[in-house]
Amino acid sequence: MKNSAKKDTAELQDRTDSGKGFLNRRVLLRGALLSAGVAAAGAGITKADDGVGASAPEWMKTPGRPFSAYGTPSKWQEKVQRIFTIAPGRAGTGVSRTPLHLLEGTLTPGGLHFERHHNGVPDIDPARHELLIHGMVKRPLAFSLDALLRYPMETHLRFIECSGNSGILNQPQAAQMTAGELNGLLSGSEWTGVRLSTLLSEAGVTSEAKWIIAEGGDAAAMSRSIPLEKCMDDAMIVFYQNGEAIRPEQGYPMRLLLPGFEGNMNVKWLRRLNVTNAPVNARDETSHYTELMPGGKARQFMFAQAAKSVILKPSFGMNLKEPGLYEISGLAWSGAGRVKKVEVSADGGKTWKVAPLTEPVLPKALTRFRLPWNWDGKPSTLMSRATDETGDVQPTRADWISQFAPGQGYHFNGIQCWRVEADGTVKHVYV
Amino acid sequence: MKNSAKKDTAELQDRTDSGKGFLNRRVLLRGALLSAGVAAAGAGITKADDGVGASAPEWMKTPGRPFSAYGTPSKWQEKVQRIFTIAPGRAGTGVSRTPLHLLEGTLTPGGLHFERHHNGVPDIDPARHELLIHGMVKRPLAFSLDALLRYPMETHLRFIECSGNSGILNQPQAAQMTAGELNGLLSGSEWTGVRLSTLLSEAGVTSEAKWIIAEGGDAAAMSRSIPLEKCMDDAMIVFYQNGEAIRPEQGYPMRLLLPGFEGNMNVKWLRRLNVTNAPVNARDETSHYTELMPGGKARQFMFAQAAKSVILKPSFGMNLKEPGLYEISGLAWSGAGRVKKVEVSADGGKTWKVAPLTEPVLPKALTRFRLPWNWDGKPSTLMSRATDETGDVQPTRADWISQFAPGQGYHFNGIQCWRVEADGTVKHVYV
Repeated sequence: MKNSAKKDTAELQDRTDSGKGFLNRRVLLRGALLSAGVAAAGAGITKADDGVGASAPEWMKTPGRPFSAYGTPSKWQEKVQRIFTIAPGRAGTGVSRTPLHLLEGTLTPGGLHFERHHNGVPDIDPARHELLIHGMVKRPLAFSLDALLRYPMETHLRFIECSGNSGILNQPQAAQMTAGELNGLLSGSEWTGVRLSTLLSEAGVTSEAKWIIAEGGDAAAMSRSIPLEKCMDDAMIVFYQNGEAIRPEQGYPMRLLLPGFEGNMNVKWLRRLNVTNAPVNARDETSHYTELMPGGKARQFMFAQAAKSVILKPSFGMNLKEPGLYEISGLAWSGAGRVKKVEVSADGGKTWKVAPLTEPVLPKALTRFRLPWNWDGKPSTLMSRATDETGDVQPTRADWISQFAPGQGYHFNGIQCWRVEADGTVKHVYV
Repeated sequence: MKNSAKKDTAELQDRTDSGKGFLNRRVLLRGALLSAGVAAAGAGITKADDGVGASAPEWMKTPGRPFSAYGTPSKWQEKVQRIFTIAPGRAGTGVSRTPLHLLEGTLTPGGLHFERHHNGVPDIDPARHELLIHGMVKRPLAFSLDALLRYPMETHLRFIECSGNSGILNQPQAAQMTAGELNGLLSGSEWTGVRLSTLLSEAGVTSEAKWIIAEGGDAAAMSRSIPLEKCMDDAMIVFYQNGEAIRPEQGYPMRLLLPGFEGNMNVKWLRRLNVTNAPVNARDETSHYTELMPGGKARQFMFAQAAKSVILKPSFGMNLKEPGLYEISGLAWSGAGRVKKVEVSADGGKTWKVAPLTEPVLPKALTRFRLPWNWDGKPSTLMSRATDETGDVQPTRADWISQFAPGQGYHFNGIQCWRVEADGTVKHVYV
């Protein structure tokens, strides 16, 4: 076995690309992992005598739990929760984040979708809720939920990202936080609802209309100005999230979905669309979500989230036990369309390798990238860089920061770095 | 308004296909719904005075609920539960069903995935669980969960359907039940895990091997025989469901996923893969899940679920209030690959119209079809018929039943029918 393991390891090194430890997929399908990567280092794989399955664990010796009407995660997963900077249970304004580094695939379970509330989560009676379309329209209309549910529906996978997401990376020192703490104002769901353009056609938008003011039915009456062009494009009123009715924290019974636009504009608990010819300059488009520029002016109405990616595995808090095989894995997305390419570097950006993307790659949706990596035990700096189908390339952190006044943190999409030390510790670093 | 409404309705009728009320998508995008379909009948759309939004409902007058660590559905959705034929809370063997008719899109939320247990849901400590691969292999191996999570992962949307699903349609009288009660042993999820072939390569399958016996870690030690060919194809060991750790009812911490194969073979709480040269003839492949033929013999090992579809909207229990616009919507799937086509009939199968499919259409995944329909108030019989990419066409119920001995109900994939009566009542019927 020892000789055979040595041979397999040598073979694996031969097939490693560019000396940075990245592996070709083809190698993985030939069974070279055991000796070279995982088991050679004793990481939880043991040689078993045949017939060992006869010794049943205690959970096979008694009947299990009964059926349940609505399931919940395993008790062994209780640490997989939304992340609060303030204690949970507090109402009012604030956020909770999705623990991205503890999840897999491309979807965010409804219970873990990030929250951004301005005055708590309203308890809306769906039978008494109405959506009003008024202002510069031929026929002001109020729709009940039942009426809206009769219109033709569409289903799309889309991400929502708060424009404040990852803003902490504008600080001078790299915060030692998990990938979820840094980037968890980001979630991806399957949304189902009605095209907003269908409803606007019912009301008959007049020729002078240019904007729509969307208002939420929460105690903050959270309002944003939306260009009419977006409302007539891929905007939707959505009622279902990941197959079931939208969760209260996400806007039950309905929210505005503006694919690719900053989270705050996807107004939750939507009650009113006021068609106008000018933006309203609501609190959340003046005091928040604007970009302070070096000259002291603020840039307003920066809607679409730019091309971005983050490595989630490995990341801060997920230290490597020993050299050997690991999968580098993360998420990429763009508010402008599909992710075209994600490149990964293990040497702080000197060299890059294209990472395969999980199919199907959908527009304005979270896209998983994965790249097998044979860590040689030396210090390594991991980075990922997304390019979208419009050609937008994720900038370095330094390049991103240089555009703005100090302290401006909205719409951060710079490249992030994880440093793997020789002892396997993973740190958040700037390069 | 009245003249205009009359004109719009006439225009809509002109653009209706084949006199069965099906509408072209193009018509819907021109704002013809209000007058012809929904609002003309007063179904929850009212003309509003401009400025009416000023009167805020009471839920805007007090701060809302606080943030939460793991969210749950709205209290207004408490009836959206798994469906039991026995009372919930009972352990042992049985099923609960997904309420398909109350859901939308293509995904099943984790909490509503159907259950099929043979002796309850075991409470498995993930740190002590091992997956054993033994039998006809060069190196019998036991993998810890941590070891498995280091292997390269894949993510796929796949359905799981119990081979007993819809079996009640073999009864002589059409059961007056909801679409979920009839067909809810069917769910769709995003699954993430490791290819089984990768692990088998580690163990080194010997040349005489032909089958693998998969055993679950539940108190029934539920076991099934799987052809080696499937195990080396698209079979996976999955750890994540819809982004988070797999739910206890679905196999926490890991299950076998055999895309397209009958649900029972996707062994949950997987603990052992015994590589052999013959099937084991376990209880669940002899006493259950076999097809009794007219001659008295039983057909065994019918693995792949056939091309199938069901209309979920409208369906039994969802009566139509008045003539006008409705969306006919449902799910289609095939264990052999992609759904190629779904046809819908509103006249009991005399004429058919192709329904658009929600993109992306993925292999062995639930596919949503939708077709706008202008119900004229006359009795109508709605049916759907799926064809998959292999050319397999969903048969009529009568054709399906004629293949088997009376009472055989496994692998039912016949066409189902909903009768819309003149008063809007929707019944389950055979034609």
